Amino acid sequence: MKISVLTLFPEYFEPLLHTSIIKRAKEKELFEFETVDFRTFTKEKHGHVDDTPYGGGAGMVLMCQPILDALKSIRTENSTVILLTPQGKTFKQEIARELSLKDHLIFICGHYEGFDERIREYVDIQMSLGDFVLTGGESACMVMCDAILRLIPGVIKQDSSDDDSFSHGLLEYPQYTRPEIYDGKRVPDVLLSGHHANIKKWRHEMALKNTFMHRPDLLEERECSKEELEFLQTLKEN
Amino acid sequence: MKISVLTLFPEYFEPLLHTSIIKRAKEKELFEFETVDFRTFTKEKHGHVDDTPYGGGAGMVLMCQPILDALKSIRTENSTVILLTPQGKTFKQEIARELSLKDHLIFICGHYEGFDERIREYVDIQMSLGDFVLTGGESACMVMCDAILRLIPGVIKQDSSDDDSFSHGLLEYPQYTRPEIYDGKRVPDVLLSGHHANIKKWRHEMALKNTFMHRPDLLEERECSKEELEFLQTLKEN
Repeated sequence: MKISVLTLFPEYFEPLLHTSIIKRAKEKELFEFETVDFRTFTKEKHGHVDDTPYGGGAGMVLMCQPILDALKSIRTENSTVILLTPQGKTFKQEIARELSLKDHLIFICGHYEGFDERIREYVDIQMSLGDFVLTGGESACMVMCDAILRLIPGVIKQDSSDDDSFSHGLLEYPQYTRPEIYDGKRVPDVLLSGHHANIKKWRHEMALKNTFMHRPDLLEERECSKEELEFLQTLKEN
Repeated sequence: MKISVLTLFPEYFEPLLHTSIIKRAKEKELFEFETVDFRTFTKEKHGHVDDTPYGGGAGMVLMCQPILDALKSIRTENSTVILLTPQGKTFKQEIARELSLKDHLIFICGHYEGFDERIREYVDIQMSLGDFVLTGGESACMVMCDAILRLIPGVIKQDSSDDDSFSHGLLEYPQYTRPEIYDGKRVPDVLLSGHHANIKKWRHEMALKNTFMHRPDLLEERECSKEELEFLQTLKEN
């Protein structure tokens, strides 16, 4: 897996590559990562990459030429080109999974007001992180890279990623660690019981309960078992 | 406005503060920003901030003591404490707006598998960036900080933020800049006409059309005018 990011701010991605889990994965060469500063591709004589919008209005618009020439320089038939844009489809765990199986991802990070509409015609996927506005696509791209890279085999322990929120269409169950009592608040008795079957059952029910309380929409999308539906029914009745 | 971030990786936030728009806003002292490494607060003799989960299972769990002591050291009555967690409410532009009006935001970034459930009882808001799993809360926190900080008066030009996607409950209209023809693709005639009323009308209709095509859910939440509803009706019929 290789990730290339087209950006005006390559330095933005340093912390992602030099911190914790992703740092170790990079050192183990589990993936390749490069940034491409598309400013270096501009043919505008002053080095500009943006210009005023046709039709007038506030702000500047990124031009086709620098971005698309930069793209052309690195794109191969194995590349998947992703444009970060508010009108793209919303990034989710299942998309992270799909993208983690690709050979080469190219992200295009916009900045300033926006980019020339014609750029959309050269990309494979338009993607959004959510319904909010950023000063640029860089921080959103970092989030997506983090979510994708941690799914590459060897980056984190497999039994860890299986337990994650959303992996089974449910939120996670509550976790506790030492001490048993903190500020008067006790760890639930079942977790201290050593009874593995009861612990497993409790955790699964708590994951269902958490999802029911905070994200009932996730349950609608999920195929629940008969036992799960019965447990959810008791929650609804109480 | 002051933002404090509790994190094990303070260096993660350097690019946000040293790049482009947010960098200039920081230099103008339009906001304060600090990171607090909660590892420095641990009373565990080896400097650990996490421990194994009660009840067994993969991974480690962040302990109450380091995070809550770090929180206590900076929290005031004007603080709003935000915990980044998958079960939190989903971050959106309207939440960014609300938070941009607060005096002091404190973000708690988890890492590793998760954190002790009891930590939730000490926060004001639990928030999620979306339905995906990250190696830590840092990149998600950067996104939220970027979205919030750009709404602080003076950070960007006001007429720019009024035009943004989601600001009126619609996606943005298409933007074009020079050249008029790129790779055979032309800028729409109306934008070259110089007829401001027509340009305004076209842009508004294109914003409606973009939203209708890509995010019809946004239209359901929006109170449309009679003219807008008529235009949407013609889209549905075609």
